[in-house]
Amino acid sequence: MFSIKVSPRFGDMDVLGHINNTVLPMWFELGRNPFFKIFAPQKAFTDGTFMLIMAHIEFDFLAELHFGEEVEIRTWVKRIGTKSFTVYHEAWQADKRCVKGDAVIVHYDFTAKVTTPIPEEKKLLLAEHLLPPGC
Amino acid sequence: MFSIKVSPRFGDMDVLGHINNTVLPMWFELGRNPFFKIFAPQKAFTDGTFMLIMAHIEFDFLAELHFGEEVEIRTWVKRIGTKSFTVYHEAWQADKRCVKGDAVIVHYDFTAKVTTPIPEEKKLLLAEHLLPPGC
Amino acid sequence: MFSIKVSPRFGDMDVLGHINNTVLPMWFELGRNPFFKIFAPQKAFTDGTFMLIMAHIEFDFLAELHFGEEVEIRTWVKRIGTKSFTVYHEAWQADKRCVKGDAVIVHYDFTAKVTTPIPEEKKLLLAEHLLPPGC
Amino acid sequence: MFSIKVSPRFGDMDVLGHINNTVLPMWFELGRNPFFKIFAPQKAFTDGTFMLIMAHIEFDFLAELHFGEEVEIRTWVKRIGTKSFTVYHEAWQADKRCVKGDAVIVHYDFTAKVTTPIPEEKKLLLAEHLLPPGC
Repeated sequence: MFSIKVSPRFGDMDVLGHINNTVLPMWFELGRNPFFKIFAPQKAFTDGTFMLIMAHIEFDFLAELHFGEEVEIRTWVKRIGTKSFTVYHEAWQADKRCVKGDAVIVHYDFTAKVTTPIPEEKKLLLAEHLLPPGC
Repeated sequence: MFSIKVSPRFGDMDVLGHINNTVLPMWFELGRNPFFKIFAPQKAFTDGTFMLIMAHIEFDFLAELHFGEEVEIRTWVKRIGTKSFTVYHEAWQADKRCVKGDAVIVHYDFTAKVTTPIPEEKKLLLAEHLLPPGC
Repeated sequence: MFSIKVSPRFGDMDVLGHINNTVLPMWFELGRNPFFKIFAPQKAFTDGTFMLIMAHIEFDFLAELHFGEEVEIRTWVKRIGTKSFTVYHEAWQADKRCVKGDAVIVHYDFTAKVTTPIPEEKKLLLAEHLLPPGC
Repeated sequence: MFSIKVSPRFGDMDVLGHINNTVLPMWFELGRNPFFKIFAPQKAFTDGTFMLIMAHIEFDFLAELHFGEEVEIRTWVKRIGTKSFTVYHEAWQADKRCVKGDAVIVHYDFTAKVTTPIPEEKKLLLAEHLLPPGC
């Protein structure tokens, strides 16, 4: 499990006084920072060696998030497939799980424009962060 | 069907040269502007009369979106339930459907903190924008 | 003068019911889209031929902007220097000038990491959009 | 001086591989979180007791900010006037000052729609964070 803390911005609140739903995709992307390190160790995003593309994201809003208190983003690997993997996120505030969601990420060759198998050594690194059964 | 046009921002592109996936939730929210008019005709968002809360959003990324060309956001009502409804969105660029996704919106009493039935006259307004069968 | 129209998003409103100040830098960036066409006609942002870098932006908030009504972003060239130029923006809503601001953009060689003179033919294109005297 | 740390998002990078300039207004807003606590101790933003409005923001971009490394936002009070005060921000990454900027914030009665004097006890709280002379 990866855990990061984010502080809501004043402008993240919408007129109803809660964190707007469009903010969560950005916070969950932040929770995926460790995966960028696994798949782009040289921070080389423009030399053709970066091979991840987003296929699907989804979010369930379970409770309102508020300004003025830190939010913890917890991130696990939920599924490791041949050419894609699924990340599972939760946003917690004040001991309450407020948002949960998935991201399906595909291993992709941007030059050839085809999906490609995830290398075995990357799969092993992903497997270190698997969601425990029953969660 | 509601249709709006958005122009990508330079900063909407990420380092891979495509529109970043976190931008789409904002564009689809823009596509839902007509629903705010149905449910908040007085633009009164802070007087307790506004009764919509987001329960779920999801996005399928089908093709890359680029900077430099307008994007059309097409929006339909996909399902009208007793206390919630589902909106369906598509993002088109250059005659290609690049992203599709749903938003499940709940009719909610923010004061009593309970879900409440959607009034019949609002349902009729929603029904004018139903996704045709087979889509 | 370049003119574009933007529709505020529900989430662009902050808890005070006005468009949050951090939204304006994004709208003014959108107003500069024509300059990207002047300086990157091939949309080649990653091949080393794109030569603009932001040096300074500023914003004066003159009146509140609201959700529910289109905003017009008007953009002019205010100054054309040897190695930089200044863009001037205004945001109008309902016949009222609500925000004004500048952006100082430097002509920059990202490979050599030095400022370089703006080519004369680009200066001529910029000059077509000069702010009239007295504005 | 207030200090916070932020982690850049993948999507904060633009196609040039640097943090896009429109991100800084959001990070500097985050650096102002302690001022919301001074002026809205009850987190009451909608009951008419919150009295701050943004008049001006500006940003000088001194060096490129990158993805993959934390950014420190340092925030001081630069000027305390009768009805407004100025906040000064710096963004540091890897021991380098990359962005600096000001925000001019006005003490404002949203009901009467007039500027009002900052209460003396708030001025004392602001004065604890004054930028040292010579900075």
